[in-house]
Amino acid sequence: MQKVSLKWIDGLRFVVNDEASHSFVIDTKKEVGGTETGFQPVDLILVSLAGCMAFDMVSILKKMHADLKHFSVTVEGERASEHPKRYTRVLLKFKTNKEVKETDLLKVFELSRDKYCSVFWTLKTPPEISFAFEIE
Amino acid sequence: MQKVSLKWIDGLRFVVNDEASHSFVIDTKKEVGGTETGFQPVDLILVSLAGCMAFDMVSILKKMHADLKHFSVTVEGERASEHPKRYTRVLLKFKTNKEVKETDLLKVFELSRDKYCSVFWTLKTPPEISFAFEIE
Repeated sequence: MQKVSLKWIDGLRFVVNDEASHSFVIDTKKEVGGTETGFQPVDLILVSLAGCMAFDMVSILKKMHADLKHFSVTVEGERASEHPKRYTRVLLKFKTNKEVKETDLLKVFELSRDKYCSVFWTLKTPPEISFAFEIE
Repeated sequence: MQKVSLKWIDGLRFVVNDEASHSFVIDTKKEVGGTETGFQPVDLILVSLAGCMAFDMVSILKKMHADLKHFSVTVEGERASEHPKRYTRVLLKFKTNKEVKETDLLKVFELSRDKYCSVFWTLKTPPEISFAFEIE
């Protein structure tokens, strides 16, 4: 079971907490009423996917004793032009150093995509989402 | 177009940046090689969904001049027991103060769920996900 909580601060700012008490602030663009002091929720689904795959890939590359000097991911998401502006396409670009064999990079990528990445598979197979309300 | 980037720091820590230069650190549990210094990627998909809905709801409640004193969301996600440990169920609990009318709370919730929330609809209708690699 994973659990997070979000608490409204002001404007459209919320502080987010996980169960280990990590926290950060989310916000949004001025044009929709935010103050731009933190990541937007819509960007975090891209971070979640890229982070999940990157963690798998770096973790397995290290187990394979790959000579990893740097590793980065950029993610671009295209959204529908009309509400709800859902993501229609997502492109992940993985970049690493030349000492890492291309076959190893592709192998760990495929292991993440096909076997380990919980976020990729959540996006492929929609979870059941339910809601509850409390007014006190 | 939304764009984020992730850069490996050490262990399984990455620094995440958006296009407005906000940044934070993601990490993971010690049992899988992390150092627990930041949010896990798998939690961020829950934050993304809850944040998206909370922003819609608070934004519309304010436009309706609702007497909003506090607003919070907790999100629980159940994952499959076998790899890939995708989310199978997600429960969002919205909580606010008693001066907010229940009918208004439900109305803004439905507007978010049915019309505005890009993350909810990304989870309902899987985007096309593609990949690129660069070794340099």
